[in-house]
Amino acid sequence: MSSSANKTNSGNFLEDFTISLRINHATPRTLTDGDRTLYTALYPTRFALPSSDAFAVRCGLPRSPIEELAAFHVAFGKTVPDVSLNAVANLGYAELQFHRPIYPGDTLATESEVIGVKENSNGKTGVVWVRSTARLVEGDGSVPGPVAIDWVRWVMVKKRDPSAPAPQAVVPELSATVPPDALYVPAGLTFEEYDFTSAGEPHRWGDYEIGEKIDHVDGVTIEEAEHMLATRLWQNTAKVHFNAQAREDGKRLIYGGHVISLARALSFNGLANTQLIAAINAGSHANPCFAGDTVYAWSEVLDKAETGKPSVGALRLRLVAVKNAPAADFRAKGEDGKYLGDVLLDLDYWALTPM
Amino acid sequence: MSSSANKTNSGNFLEDFTISLRINHATPRTLTDGDRTLYTALYPTRFALPSSDAFAVRCGLPRSPIEELAAFHVAFGKTVPDVSLNAVANLGYAELQFHRPIYPGDTLATESEVIGVKENSNGKTGVVWVRSTARLVEGDGSVPGPVAIDWVRWVMVKKRDPSAPAPQAVVPELSATVPPDALYVPAGLTFEEYDFTSAGEPHRWGDYEIGEKIDHVDGVTIEEAEHMLATRLWQNTAKVHFNAQAREDGKRLIYGGHVISLARALSFNGLANTQLIAAINAGSHANPCFAGDTVYAWSEVLDKAETGKPSVGALRLRLVAVKNAPAADFRAKGEDGKYLGDVLLDLDYWALTPM
Amino acid sequence: MSSSANKTNSGNFLEDFTISLRINHATPRTLTDGDRTLYTALYPTRFALPSSDAFAVRCGLPRSPIEELAAFHVAFGKTVPDVSLNAVANLGYAELQFHRPIYPGDTLATESEVIGVKENSNGKTGVVWVRSTARLVEGDGSVPGPVAIDWVRWVMVKKRDPSAPAPQAVVPELSATVPPDALYVPAGLTFEEYDFTSAGEPHRWGDYEIGEKIDHVDGVTIEEAEHMLATRLWQNTAKVHFNAQAREDGKRLIYGGHVISLARALSFNGLANTQLIAAINAGSHANPCFAGDTVYAWSEVLDKAETGKPSVGALRLRLVAVKNAPAADFRAKGEDGKYLGDVLLDLDYWALTPM
Repeated sequence: MSSSANKTNSGNFLEDFTISLRINHATPRTLTDGDRTLYTALYPTRFALPSSDAFAVRCGLPRSPIEELAAFHVAFGKTVPDVSLNAVANLGYAELQFHRPIYPGDTLATESEVIGVKENSNGKTGVVWVRSTARLVEGDGSVPGPVAIDWVRWVMVKKRDPSAPAPQAVVPELSATVPPDALYVPAGLTFEEYDFTSAGEPHRWGDYEIGEKIDHVDGVTIEEAEHMLATRLWQNTAKVHFNAQAREDGKRLIYGGHVISLARALSFNGLANTQLIAAINAGSHANPCFAGDTVYAWSEVLDKAETGKPSVGALRLRLVAVKNAPAADFRAKGEDGKYLGDVLLDLDYWALTPM
Repeated sequence: MSSSANKTNSGNFLEDFTISLRINHATPRTLTDGDRTLYTALYPTRFALPSSDAFAVRCGLPRSPIEELAAFHVAFGKTVPDVSLNAVANLGYAELQFHRPIYPGDTLATESEVIGVKENSNGKTGVVWVRSTARLVEGDGSVPGPVAIDWVRWVMVKKRDPSAPAPQAVVPELSATVPPDALYVPAGLTFEEYDFTSAGEPHRWGDYEIGEKIDHVDGVTIEEAEHMLATRLWQNTAKVHFNAQAREDGKRLIYGGHVISLARALSFNGLANTQLIAAINAGSHANPCFAGDTVYAWSEVLDKAETGKPSVGALRLRLVAVKNAPAADFRAKGEDGKYLGDVLLDLDYWALTPM
Repeated sequence: MSSSANKTNSGNFLEDFTISLRINHATPRTLTDGDRTLYTALYPTRFALPSSDAFAVRCGLPRSPIEELAAFHVAFGKTVPDVSLNAVANLGYAELQFHRPIYPGDTLATESEVIGVKENSNGKTGVVWVRSTARLVEGDGSVPGPVAIDWVRWVMVKKRDPSAPAPQAVVPELSATVPPDALYVPAGLTFEEYDFTSAGEPHRWGDYEIGEKIDHVDGVTIEEAEHMLATRLWQNTAKVHFNAQAREDGKRLIYGGHVISLARALSFNGLANTQLIAAINAGSHANPCFAGDTVYAWSEVLDKAETGKPSVGALRLRLVAVKNAPAADFRAKGEDGKYLGDVLLDLDYWALTPM
């Protein structure tokens, strides 16, 4: 009789991430109507395009797509066992783009390439940058399908052996924002016959001003069962989300993506016509979120741009989630430039909106 | 930089509800197999018709429909941002009719008409009556689809300005019950080949007597995560259900419809053959329900009627939900005619049952 | 006015289980994509075959099947109102076989035959053995469909009347294991083009040795809402799972099948290529599980066998779930041969794995 620790995945450490290493992540997943339903039960989303087939048809799409963030969470979840199982912190996102809508029946698989690595001065940890690409998997998967989502993220991971020499530092150059002329507008999408009444608000692209801030008013208190259902749905395996014995404080850390989806859903109230997320420029999880926290959100219009399609405009939005008190004070950072203790998320994204 | 409270929905107040005002509510929603599954996970339902395609085919339907109450909750949820965001209390329902079964793939949208308004003597609040109609949305939604559900409800809402003059009082006349000859029996429905074994109980329409009471025996203890998943699934936005900071007592009020669905599901035990709800005559949420409460239910047969179809009978049932002790005592109101403190729901409805 | 306790199901008692009695259980159920999604949200499963249509097509199946245990829980749930509503304990399983994959759209119904009965020496309880068969229900259900799953289980049930004479004891002979040449390999299944990268681990059938033990490392803390959502999804009606007032200690007992599914999902880490469960040879719920428990799992390779298909091997696995401390010590029974107090499950099953 023998035990076999070698058959289980202990994750990768800093030393394992060599520049240009490509990783095909496990467990492709087919999204279905069930995912669309469960997303609605987990987050208070009311955007009309991912809610109604008829609304989507009127916008030129074949049927109602699955919310971009649901597809992203699934695509992202696949990278966790290989990239961030030994992560100390998820440091940031950049250059995330949605290349096409995802529909029930679509299967996603994700691959990553290491594009940067840098040991920290403490010699115990380092930062790894990976560019990940989620593709549709068609037929039996033997031919690579079209790109659905791609993004860069960087995480702090542990070294396996602190006494090992530091790898040569490579820090990638990343765009501060996805330029608006690079945004993908889904084939066929048009807002020419857009139904503002069904969408819930009358505000067009032209009604938003750069610098304008919106308090999304509503708050949602989070339960353990909810964030664990969600995080499992994304097949995200990070221990800290599920195992009350994994952290010294006995708390389960809520997956940062759960807070993103919650804040985005809350932003309906004031941004009901920002129907599709086209890109995420940057994102920070400023402080941890735990069950029992009540999450509120506010947004700021950072920029506006036209797209190739006359009826479709793009709004660059800052979405900030805070906890345990309403967001009406639009709080984020203190005078010292650091995030306040009750700020959870600071996200910078592009959304497609009727002009 | 400017903030824009004007972009968010602050709901309507008593002054906003003028007689004959029509409101097209936002966010049409496509129901799917996912809704059917999640309904089964949220409520202990075992009625065969909404559970089994084969059972439904045997009853003359093309496939298994989504439970009527799931469709109702979705249709109802759409009215909340416009009708009851500033509601003090949901006072009652009347004349609710299901016009046709709802199947996965169907899209629902809801519109309402104000049919009554009356200021309360305190000058601070008033009662508003609305008739709401949920229709199927077909194609791109440009042509109104057939009616799926309609109903009247009345709510107590706040005045925006207590010093404003009272609106002229209009109180609609409402039927105490939907007359049985007005009930919609779905096209094709037949119970001629009804499979009592699969349905779970042998009791036919003829086996129930007016005045008969049934204790449904089972009890279910409710968790926060469950009622919030459900209420989000219905895209119901009322703050008190989700935000532990919204009420002074720090409790989240459970959506009354959650109790209706729970009690209806419990009623399977004794009423397994009441396969479809055809109409709701009246409904009162007698006391609030909170997480931790254990819900039990009992029913009384109020009336019996034939329908146009020889195999399909109608039972008029009173469904009472109570909490934290079994329902074997059939309790509801005290000697003073008021509901006892542990009574949650008193619902009066018509169900279609094999003769 | 009359009350009618006779219309509700009080379950069967020892006296009701006569040898050869056949019971057609109520409420056939159609499984859908929604069930597949919700299973993923409830358990941390990452097996590629039930996750990805493309992976399933590459393995010769028409699309991704629903996880066997989801189908089993649904099939099993139907037997509860008739077999185990008055059960004191669920004693064991044997000879469980999956005859074919279950796909979204399939409808399952279950029938049982009493094959054994034996009164306990206390005269108050006894053991009942039933063989249950879940079949596909096709068309309108009037012609019995093919067998999907069958199994034997035995439960301890109460006597209705302790003074009644004991039934003649009949104890069935049961196989200790399903012989490997009796295992059903799904039509069309092939692992010739198996994609180990997508599956998540490189270990083939030949890489596992009899006697090898694997610690699955990860742990999951269970919440009340999760096990109740799951158990309702299986339409399992046992009171102790849902009603905090049903037991003197005020705790809700977690359905044993919830622990089976959780442990099986955790076993992905080390057994990622055990794609299908073909049979369950035996199973014991060693100790009760409650919300708040953190569940870990380990496995032992008990046996290996070839199947008729060259690319498809069978591994006989012992899956043990423990609670509240990691499973790295491979604990199960103490020196006295009894299960330790923190052991939840001891399951013996056959899984199909690429050779």
